[in-house]
Amino acid sequence: MPSEFAADADRVMAWADALGALSEEPGKLTCTYLSDAHRATAARLADEMRACGFDEVRQDDIGNVIGRYGAQSDVPAPRRVVTGSHYDTVRDAGRYDGRLGILLPMAFVARLAREGRRLPFTLDVVAFAEEEGVRFGSTYLGSSAFVGRFDAALLDRVDAAGVSLADAIRAAGGDPGAVVATQAAPIDHYFEIHIEQGPVLLDAGHPLGVVTAIAGAERRRLVLGGTASHAGTTPMGLRRDAACAAAEIVLAVEAICSGVPGLVGTVGQLHVPDGAVNVVPGACVLSLDVRSGSDAVRDAALSRIDTAIDGIVTRRGIACTQETLLRGPAAPCDLAGQAAWTRALAQAGVPHHALPSGAGHDAVMMARVAPVSMLFVRCGAGGISHNPLETVTVDDVSTAMAALHAFLHDGAGLAA
Amino acid sequence: MPSEFAADADRVMAWADALGALSEEPGKLTCTYLSDAHRATAARLADEMRACGFDEVRQDDIGNVIGRYGAQSDVPAPRRVVTGSHYDTVRDAGRYDGRLGILLPMAFVARLAREGRRLPFTLDVVAFAEEEGVRFGSTYLGSSAFVGRFDAALLDRVDAAGVSLADAIRAAGGDPGAVVATQAAPIDHYFEIHIEQGPVLLDAGHPLGVVTAIAGAERRRLVLGGTASHAGTTPMGLRRDAACAAAEIVLAVEAICSGVPGLVGTVGQLHVPDGAVNVVPGACVLSLDVRSGSDAVRDAALSRIDTAIDGIVTRRGIACTQETLLRGPAAPCDLAGQAAWTRALAQAGVPHHALPSGAGHDAVMMARVAPVSMLFVRCGAGGISHNPLETVTVDDVSTAMAALHAFLHDGAGLAA
Repeated sequence: MPSEFAADADRVMAWADALGALSEEPGKLTCTYLSDAHRATAARLADEMRACGFDEVRQDDIGNVIGRYGAQSDVPAPRRVVTGSHYDTVRDAGRYDGRLGILLPMAFVARLAREGRRLPFTLDVVAFAEEEGVRFGSTYLGSSAFVGRFDAALLDRVDAAGVSLADAIRAAGGDPGAVVATQAAPIDHYFEIHIEQGPVLLDAGHPLGVVTAIAGAERRRLVLGGTASHAGTTPMGLRRDAACAAAEIVLAVEAICSGVPGLVGTVGQLHVPDGAVNVVPGACVLSLDVRSGSDAVRDAALSRIDTAIDGIVTRRGIACTQETLLRGPAAPCDLAGQAAWTRALAQAGVPHHALPSGAGHDAVMMARVAPVSMLFVRCGAGGISHNPLETVTVDDVSTAMAALHAFLHDGAGLAA
Repeated sequence: MPSEFAADADRVMAWADALGALSEEPGKLTCTYLSDAHRATAARLADEMRACGFDEVRQDDIGNVIGRYGAQSDVPAPRRVVTGSHYDTVRDAGRYDGRLGILLPMAFVARLAREGRRLPFTLDVVAFAEEEGVRFGSTYLGSSAFVGRFDAALLDRVDAAGVSLADAIRAAGGDPGAVVATQAAPIDHYFEIHIEQGPVLLDAGHPLGVVTAIAGAERRRLVLGGTASHAGTTPMGLRRDAACAAAEIVLAVEAICSGVPGLVGTVGQLHVPDGAVNVVPGACVLSLDVRSGSDAVRDAALSRIDTAIDGIVTRRGIACTQETLLRGPAAPCDLAGQAAWTRALAQAGVPHHALPSGAGHDAVMMARVAPVSMLFVRCGAGGISHNPLETVTVDDVSTAMAALHAFLHDGAGLAA
């Protein structure tokens, strides 16, 4: 699909390749918070932003790289639009997760600067330093600092080598006190472009999707207790088999969460501790992860799951303890922002596709201080992400550039 | 229940207590093959057999302790009946598993000798040296040597300390070559008294049970392969979840094996390798153990299970590999022997109860050379075994003595 944005898309792909070569592990892309590769990535992003023609490029104390492109001079009190995503990665990552949402707006600003044009609002493009939570086990370090919601208690966290977050920030030239003290300037709209990290757009044959909400998640750990007994001498009718109860729960979760758009339920961990081929399982441990873009939908599903679990364990005489590991609310996307993206997709000539985000993104943190919107770009290779096989096509990036162009010229989701 | 056998039962319980105190681990009963405790147990059994009035007591090269009580002198060519069980134990064992089948016949012979009476057949009571397979990972060492079916290749096996079986036998004064060279004398009937090691008689309220067959077992390992994917971004309809497939298989095994007398099916091992709360399981590993006293019943169940597995993995797009770990045929009990035990239970005044044995016993090995029969004694404490909580009541032992008395005076299962 040759388009006026093809060259911009090529540039985005080349940047992603170049950043993907900066890794702390040879032969794969690993760029965890404040590693040498991570600091080299930040420096490279700042250099490229300057080359793009941003008016101001700076790095804050947590490591976010922020490029500002000022508004038209004839707008007296311009509003402020922020976009971005993260540049840290998981271990053995793909090249597009996070970075696409930094590089596409950079290419857009480069085009504006080249043409000598401005927008009627200030546009900040932020490369967030940390979102994945790999090094210190806590996510959104970059965006939480950016919006003045950084949790000071995290500074004492240590990584696998025993280095505290505070010391890591200091070693990189930052001031932990300044991170905590940050007061965020008001943001009128935040939008984030991200690869889908799933197979929905691929399956539908659509290059772009407008995110309706970022799903909230509830995660639990269940421990089932039955009676371990001899697999040969215990008749079926006299068993209290914890694995059979777990199996029923796994299938109940699947059944309850199927057929409801945007609702997903997963038992990702499942095991019989010290299981033996000739022993009826006396215990089984499993995890539960239920997500929806709607807290009401998620809670209704959890209620049905609880009822199902009660029935299963009561009927089977199984003890069940549940521990809630996480309970995060959904972050709905701004309706005006969604409408603006919908118009932008139409202008870009692609079908409308609305979908929730099952994964968390920096937009979750940004939603605490601003209306947010998100654009998903189709993920190739079956929708795989957090994996070197993660791909996007240059055509889809070109289409996303066209949609971004339309979105920004349409007002960037700013309510009128 | 005071009976004429109450004193015999008390003696059996006292012997079991005394043997239970000979352990290689303080505070618990552990008596593995040729440990000091094991050799002390053999010596104690031989002493007690002599005190009972056996005509001849000897220990063979593998460590079996054999007491012979000769037939009536007016029988010209007396037939040979053998009974017994094993005196080795699992770690942290109960006091009755195996030993009850040695001590009950010993008490019976003591009564005969005291009364100056003989039976019309030779009775050999054998305390088999090894059945559990703890030290060298191979079961039936005692009974296989006794019947001349010892596998010479096992002599090179080493225990956890690197000691070979051959050296262990030599250190105990035995001759490994003699073990291998043993030619078994013909046996006209073998019977074995054993605790049930399960809850069936307890649940039915019956003290004794006549074993119909010792179940054969088929054991398999199944590896299911789906697609690991993001628990938040992969819609339910686009998943290939290996744990959901495993859950269906677990429940199919349970359903297929329920309601068929004597058939049991167990998934004792079940786990998602490297499972994470937020990842749809890409793999799941499970074990399968199916047993029945009838090979035809077991094979029919396995055929239904295979059909169910095929349907599940095909519908879900899951890869499945199966490895057969064990395939052992059932050992049916001799019909004349079962009938003799049935008459003996009636004479002892207890209800008839026939059941298969889901666990293996020395009788499995003995069935290779002789007709076999088995009497089960009710197990207390929910049917638990291989555990210090394993119990039998003195009343049930007294009732078993009464049944044994009737069985032996009725011909000991010898076909007419």
